[in-house]
Amino acid sequence: MKTVNFIFGIHNHQPVGNFDFVMEYAYRHSYLPFVEVIEEFPNIAISIHFSGCLLEWLEDHYPDYLDRVARLVQRGNVEILSGGFFEPVLAVIPDADKVGQIKMMNDYIRKRFKFEPKGLWLTERVWEPYLAKPIAEAGIKYITVDDYHFLGTGKLERDLTGHFITEEQGKTLSIFPINQKLRYAIPFKDPQETIDYLRQYATEDGSNAIVMADDGEKFGVWPGTYEVVFEKNWLRDFLKILDQNSDWIKTRTFSDYYNEHSPRGRIYLPTASYFEMSEWSLPWEAGEKFDDLVREFEHQERSAEVKPFIKGGIWRNFLFKYDESNWMQKKMQYLSDRYHRIDPASLTSAKKKDLKIARDHLWRSMCNCAYWHGIFGGLYLPHLRHAIYTELLSCEVILNKIERRKAFHIEKLDIDADGSDEILVTAGNLHLAFAPHRGAMMNEFSLLDKSYNVLNSLKRYKEAYHRKVTAAGKESAGGSIHDNVMAKEAGLENYLKYDKYPRKNLVDHFIKPEITLDQFRNGEYYEDSDFIDGKYDIEIDLKGKKLLFYRHGWVNWQKFAVQKSVRVEDGGLKIEYCLENLGDKTDHFRFAPEFNFAMLGGETPDRYYMADNSRLKESALNSKGALTSTKSMSVVNEWDKFKLTVTAAKADEFWYFPIETVSLSESGFERVYQSSVIVPLFDVELKPGETRAIQLELQVDNL
Amino acid sequence: MKTVNFIFGIHNHQPVGNFDFVMEYAYRHSYLPFVEVIEEFPNIAISIHFSGCLLEWLEDHYPDYLDRVARLVQRGNVEILSGGFFEPVLAVIPDADKVGQIKMMNDYIRKRFKFEPKGLWLTERVWEPYLAKPIAEAGIKYITVDDYHFLGTGKLERDLTGHFITEEQGKTLSIFPINQKLRYAIPFKDPQETIDYLRQYATEDGSNAIVMADDGEKFGVWPGTYEVVFEKNWLRDFLKILDQNSDWIKTRTFSDYYNEHSPRGRIYLPTASYFEMSEWSLPWEAGEKFDDLVREFEHQERSAEVKPFIKGGIWRNFLFKYDESNWMQKKMQYLSDRYHRIDPASLTSAKKKDLKIARDHLWRSMCNCAYWHGIFGGLYLPHLRHAIYTELLSCEVILNKIERRKAFHIEKLDIDADGSDEILVTAGNLHLAFAPHRGAMMNEFSLLDKSYNVLNSLKRYKEAYHRKVTAAGKESAGGSIHDNVMAKEAGLENYLKYDKYPRKNLVDHFIKPEITLDQFRNGEYYEDSDFIDGKYDIEIDLKGKKLLFYRHGWVNWQKFAVQKSVRVEDGGLKIEYCLENLGDKTDHFRFAPEFNFAMLGGETPDRYYMADNSRLKESALNSKGALTSTKSMSVVNEWDKFKLTVTAAKADEFWYFPIETVSLSESGFERVYQSSVIVPLFDVELKPGETRAIQLELQVDNL
Repeated sequence: MKTVNFIFGIHNHQPVGNFDFVMEYAYRHSYLPFVEVIEEFPNIAISIHFSGCLLEWLEDHYPDYLDRVARLVQRGNVEILSGGFFEPVLAVIPDADKVGQIKMMNDYIRKRFKFEPKGLWLTERVWEPYLAKPIAEAGIKYITVDDYHFLGTGKLERDLTGHFITEEQGKTLSIFPINQKLRYAIPFKDPQETIDYLRQYATEDGSNAIVMADDGEKFGVWPGTYEVVFEKNWLRDFLKILDQNSDWIKTRTFSDYYNEHSPRGRIYLPTASYFEMSEWSLPWEAGEKFDDLVREFEHQERSAEVKPFIKGGIWRNFLFKYDESNWMQKKMQYLSDRYHRIDPASLTSAKKKDLKIARDHLWRSMCNCAYWHGIFGGLYLPHLRHAIYTELLSCEVILNKIERRKAFHIEKLDIDADGSDEILVTAGNLHLAFAPHRGAMMNEFSLLDKSYNVLNSLKRYKEAYHRKVTAAGKESAGGSIHDNVMAKEAGLENYLKYDKYPRKNLVDHFIKPEITLDQFRNGEYYEDSDFIDGKYDIEIDLKGKKLLFYRHGWVNWQKFAVQKSVRVEDGGLKIEYCLENLGDKTDHFRFAPEFNFAMLGGETPDRYYMADNSRLKESALNSKGALTSTKSMSVVNEWDKFKLTVTAAKADEFWYFPIETVSLSESGFERVYQSSVIVPLFDVELKPGETRAIQLELQVDNL
Repeated sequence: MKTVNFIFGIHNHQPVGNFDFVMEYAYRHSYLPFVEVIEEFPNIAISIHFSGCLLEWLEDHYPDYLDRVARLVQRGNVEILSGGFFEPVLAVIPDADKVGQIKMMNDYIRKRFKFEPKGLWLTERVWEPYLAKPIAEAGIKYITVDDYHFLGTGKLERDLTGHFITEEQGKTLSIFPINQKLRYAIPFKDPQETIDYLRQYATEDGSNAIVMADDGEKFGVWPGTYEVVFEKNWLRDFLKILDQNSDWIKTRTFSDYYNEHSPRGRIYLPTASYFEMSEWSLPWEAGEKFDDLVREFEHQERSAEVKPFIKGGIWRNFLFKYDESNWMQKKMQYLSDRYHRIDPASLTSAKKKDLKIARDHLWRSMCNCAYWHGIFGGLYLPHLRHAIYTELLSCEVILNKIERRKAFHIEKLDIDADGSDEILVTAGNLHLAFAPHRGAMMNEFSLLDKSYNVLNSLKRYKEAYHRKVTAAGKESAGGSIHDNVMAKEAGLENYLKYDKYPRKNLVDHFIKPEITLDQFRNGEYYEDSDFIDGKYDIEIDLKGKKLLFYRHGWVNWQKFAVQKSVRVEDGGLKIEYCLENLGDKTDHFRFAPEFNFAMLGGETPDRYYMADNSRLKESALNSKGALTSTKSMSVVNEWDKFKLTVTAAKADEFWYFPIETVSLSESGFERVYQSSVIVPLFDVELKPGETRAIQLELQVDNL
């Protein structure tokens, strides 16, 4: 009789920092009912992966659920897959952490499920050839990735009937291709389609294996799936039909099949993830072109034939597409480096414990979700980025303690790998980073006691999909909404504004007096100077706890010199500018140093603005939206219990506004608050040779 | 004034093992005249890379030439680029050798040219993200790769005006994009075209750099280029026009520009090489489809727009496309592993010297050319593969000595990373490898004293470009040859035969009695059994120096058992088969164990066949091309001074024929001898339960 092996795997994951109610929803609508159904089918083999982030939540909330899973494993035909514990993209974390996180998961699985893991779920299926080595070194024998990875090497769909062996520097690893057709069919099409597909691969020797492995959330969490999968019994029907055909469809775990069958051959896969990732990772202009090309082939009905050769970007593109993702990832690498330099043998037992806690924070900070963006929120969601910073800073605080760092500490290094050194300053409760070569801006402003980076902001980037928002907006004006675009609110197209400069602190604008607040907010004006992102020289005055930046550049086509000194104290900063006209004409401009505070919410009951220490009222604004006769502005975060105040006693005006992005989420386009901008403005007129001094303060208060 | 930087780089290389006359030709037609012209232009900056293989040859033959280059460097505007010393594809050699070979080149450049290298020529521009780390660790600051690598990430041509910084696990490296337009224009188009192109990138701040870097052999060695570049003075004219425009075209070495300019931004590149490599590395079926797609876009004149998203295979594909390439590469890794396990501190000073010699052989064996195939011969050229084996085996002999390996040594390990163990046997002068899981065939047969792998054979693979040979054949029958296909001889299409099984030793065929020699030679028959590539069990009899393979399988749809024992002595092998019919019908078949001997030439004056120890005459063959009444056949290699004899006293016939491939070379399609096949045939009739014993000998004689 002709038989075929069918490997059915699911991957369950929730990001570090996700809202509790989201986890609860996913548990009730997917993780729990899925297992309940599986329990009914003692003869169906299945492979399951849980990310460590989800496991931690389950251990806290539903440890009995994990007991049930353990019993399924003991029953004999459920495999538990390993992975990087906190679901990191393995390619972008240090080797020691790759191996460490996988071993941590292996240990957990052994203890909790009494199962010896040999397989690994590769986060977001982000593959690079080098990964074979650290993954193999962590004791893993096989992984699974998309067939798309294989088709690009010239393998054909009919070849992909088992595992293939790859190798890096002598370390071998097997790779199972995930069948895309089944991935699209399960649980969206009639179970019979899967059966029919499997029949094509049934052979006398029964050695073929077809793999379907995908997100567990497809079963109950994705829109509409709870009804189909559980209420209308798709999953139960599917497993029943597998059971009924068990004479020729052999359900197998990866582990079963791997133990019984040699590799189908040798393989080397390119840098790849699933097909869609290669589109998402492109910058907008290339992304639009790529999307056009893909659609062209879809219209020609040639996708299957051509897709293997169509490739966009790789996951690492996100690190240059989004500077903010890069900063998190590089800070993570920097802390990992510090962590691994510490010899535990040299520590007291209390400090050893601390070190382990630091490690867990470090590893948790590697959870992939906040580092990238596709069609779910990801990087665009401030609370996910905030969760990463919370872990990073919690780790940093412990490392500072173990390393006995002084309360005032300055480091000069190229932390973000852009080719120039940043200045990292720790002063008591504050941890700051400055980029002298980028206008001497401040690109991290962390409150260590709260593990809170107030500069967890996000620039408004143009995205390839924004043209759909514009198109939808135009059509809705005419009465109809394009059917494949859903927007959570009307008029989103009006928010499609883009930032030329980072939304960070001490981003120094020189603008023409006639520029309006709207023009400024929308990035629809020209910067009249190169001080905004030019390279400053720097002197560090350790005793005075002062950074002195200076630069010769131009304002309004005239030579200018700017000195910018920042005195860092525990409770805040004193900033002093000295602007000097080196040209031969009188110059008139507005000087507008920008501040951004990522409050995780704009104006809400517990997050609001103050002017001169009173809650801000709209009536205080002048007809142009500016605050005049104001000496200071504050942002208050009652939830996290702090207040930040920018004092500029001599400012002529204050501007403030929220930065809001438009991004894709699972339920459509949405507007997301990213940071609160505060800009004191100074009208300056300088004759040739004249200078103007400007003082600012940035005060941190705990509430 | 608007200015632009122009970086002009060349890469000079000849493979390890190339013929002396080819090196000499390249020297006289390219390397020498190029430098002579450069000497005339003291103000033109240029960056040059020489591979170590070429440097060794130049040091031997023209050390004064290198003195001239050193003087150019001292003159101040010639940069010498580093690289892996022996031009390895860095991605597929161990990390320690990556760093070691780069440092070896750095040291050489410092000593020979009094120049501190900071840049690296990346062999075949084969990039993988991980490479940033070992390259940076070897002290390199920047490399250069094709703009195609960058365009795939979504960068646009207009962005590629300097270097970009990449990073791996905190190690940073800058990458310059090579401009494809200039690469195609130089030296094939009017110099003015380059000038016009550069003008587009001239700016007031003069910070743009445009890079043209490519093979030095384009200047004089490639067909037709000597006439253009030197006789008709293309190069002199080009440099003159650059000189005349030196007010706005600033020629710069990579080094000059790197020192003066920050990165243009951050970048992460995918696994990539130049565009063509992505086609060459595909197996034939996918290769044809890819080629069709590329042509489709060319016809639509959309190449520039679409190519960034069109990608085929990666370089590592060659390792599964060609098993023979994989064997060399894995043997190299195996020896590297052995080499690096030796602690030099534990050795006598004589052995330390030996170890350094072993290292040089090892590193020389990593030269890329013989490991892959595009449009030059590469892997298809037996003398290039032979040179690799010579280096590998020379290294192995020394390591055996240093490790004090016994004269008879057996190792069981998965040397070729196919998931199953091979058996490596060293017996005096012989080094053999067997693959129990692949029909217990022998896939290496090395004569250690000659550093000669007699199993340096090559299967006849189908190549995507073979359809052009067929097309040309058809057209030439009708009178005209397709203009873009050149064949070195007529009728090549008749040689397009493909091998289903490896061309190795003890490849055991069971064929129907009526199969003819032609059918067998052309692979146009069905194998009547699964013993050809099935998995054997193995027992090792160390005392008896014997390998015992046994397996249950089928012949002619009946159950059979085969025992195959190989006794290994210094001077040869004694092989004994026992075939047993376990079925219930009498079976009649021919048993035909195949031998391949890669003699580096078929029938030539110093390489020929013998039958029963007399030079073979065609008249001895029967009407079907077989030798009857013959007890032994030999192949003689007078050049390398050895004779190999297959003795099969009871054979009914002997077949022999050369394996000849059809491959692309720089001057068109060519037929290449790969190995001499010798097959003793035994007519076997076995009743149920009967057995038949068959004895063979394989004798090695030095001449």
